[in-house]
Amino acid sequence: MRIVITGGAGFLGSRLAAKLLQRATLTDARGQVREISSIVLLDVAAASPPDDRRVRAIAGDLTDRESVARAVTPDTDTVFHLAAVVSGQAEADFDIGMRVNLDATRMLLEHCRSLKTPPKFVFTSSLAVFGGTLPDPVPDDAPVTPQASYGAQKAIGELLVYDMTRKGFLDGRSLRLPTVTVRPGKPNKAASSFASGIIREPLAGVDTCCPVAPTTTMWVQSPRTVIDNLIVGHEAPASAFGQTRSINVPGISVSVGDMVAALRRVAGDAVAQRVRWEFEPAIDRIVSTWPARFAPVQGPALGMRADADFESIVRAYIADDM
Amino acid sequence: MRIVITGGAGFLGSRLAAKLLQRATLTDARGQVREISSIVLLDVAAASPPDDRRVRAIAGDLTDRESVARAVTPDTDTVFHLAAVVSGQAEADFDIGMRVNLDATRMLLEHCRSLKTPPKFVFTSSLAVFGGTLPDPVPDDAPVTPQASYGAQKAIGELLVYDMTRKGFLDGRSLRLPTVTVRPGKPNKAASSFASGIIREPLAGVDTCCPVAPTTTMWVQSPRTVIDNLIVGHEAPASAFGQTRSINVPGISVSVGDMVAALRRVAGDAVAQRVRWEFEPAIDRIVSTWPARFAPVQGPALGMRADADFESIVRAYIADDM
Repeated sequence: MRIVITGGAGFLGSRLAAKLLQRATLTDARGQVREISSIVLLDVAAASPPDDRRVRAIAGDLTDRESVARAVTPDTDTVFHLAAVVSGQAEADFDIGMRVNLDATRMLLEHCRSLKTPPKFVFTSSLAVFGGTLPDPVPDDAPVTPQASYGAQKAIGELLVYDMTRKGFLDGRSLRLPTVTVRPGKPNKAASSFASGIIREPLAGVDTCCPVAPTTTMWVQSPRTVIDNLIVGHEAPASAFGQTRSINVPGISVSVGDMVAALRRVAGDAVAQRVRWEFEPAIDRIVSTWPARFAPVQGPALGMRADADFESIVRAYIADDM
Repeated sequence: MRIVITGGAGFLGSRLAAKLLQRATLTDARGQVREISSIVLLDVAAASPPDDRRVRAIAGDLTDRESVARAVTPDTDTVFHLAAVVSGQAEADFDIGMRVNLDATRMLLEHCRSLKTPPKFVFTSSLAVFGGTLPDPVPDDAPVTPQASYGAQKAIGELLVYDMTRKGFLDGRSLRLPTVTVRPGKPNKAASSFASGIIREPLAGVDTCCPVAPTTTMWVQSPRTVIDNLIVGHEAPASAFGQTRSINVPGISVSVGDMVAALRRVAGDAVAQRVRWEFEPAIDRIVSTWPARFAPVQGPALGMRADADFESIVRAYIADDM
């Protein structure tokens, strides 16, 4: 079993690789459980792969056909497509978002289709495909009306994944991830970056600003749980899907104020007081279009799960990343 | 006021041009009612324009940037984008559907965006963006889950039109047309082509085959009414739209058996008996994914209308096209 992870140098990509190495098997497109022999981490800058003979890093731009062909060889069994231009950047620069989130995704799909035995294809979509006025909680079949370019590009990717799957070109699945928190490392250009920052920075003794109101509520999931759910989405039999290949991944609904309160309970007043509230309209405008509560049915039926509560998310971050 | 109609040599394109010439004015993107000074009919083969100094035909491929730039000049006020690869062809040849229905639409949008004063943009979408299990009747905000490539490509076009409108790149509107019948001329590769054929051919004394069951029900509209609704969609103020730019155009719900019965009432037994029933699974598979009944609210509120009944559609065809 040969696996390619795009965005493989990223935080989720390297976590996914580590989990797959530990797991050692996956189910291929023909439903056979097979041993993982090789994982390729494709990213713009080469990943620093773990010390494991099964893993190889390839530096290459996903918008470049040659790079894609070098990574996704004819013996590839699965592609986890994690690479993306994040929400804040896709909104600030429409063209780069289109180039990476739409064009590169399409090229990757077309390349997979061109192989004699097309790989399984797991596309990481996002709750950002939803926006505007929606039922609360959001049901699995809610209308997709994204209110920012990132969500529009992900929604287009989902339509391509479904149509190419329906045509029999490959076996694709689109997983609409909640906001992933707590991410380690530096802030990024995702509009949701603060949802990690308000936990990560105070725990590191650093002051941080929260750009949305304490009442802003988000649909979130820890990295651990996201990785588990990505694998559940990969393993789901093709017969489990109906008239789309898109799944609302379960999460928990937490206000930003409650996130900080959970941090206070876990790490104390002094740490929680490192969060300052400085409203930023550009961030709030994107985040406020995302629904904060879902009623997922299909994801849990497949075996996907949510974190127990936000405190356990904070504790998982301390255990895994500090 | 300078207007470009893509697919201008086609049946709807030339009808639209004729109606616009008769109407003589349109409202531009700034809300000003202006006199129509020029209509450009862009199509692969040059249109045969009516004898009117305001109309000019340009032969050019919509997938070719130069052709688009030659037709959509910086002084263009409105683009009606009617050109498309039809449903049956888009399903039979995925790549040509993607090239025309997606890539050419995107290039046209990008070209409009690049102009100093971007034109208003009317995109003809289709009820084919809907498919699979849906509420009956289909509400305006029903989930978009196309079950054929044509619908997927139109759904992607709608996402682009909305996102580029939201970004302020242009003022776009996507009108989801019912099946248009009765079309004059020859059968085409649309899966819905028979819905015109079963009326047009018998009236011309020609035997014809219907590839779906008499109980198959469709959401239809006469060419006259479609043209009126395209203009209503163009004239609607930007303020009339909410979190999408897509409108379900009203129509009527008629079974194919009732279409033939209406033909019988209008033209007699001998004519209606020219319809034979020969089931074709490839056609039925596409048509049966389209919903047959809608409950449009926004379209009628803007002033769009449906035909009175199918008999009046048959009579309109006889009056306009025979």
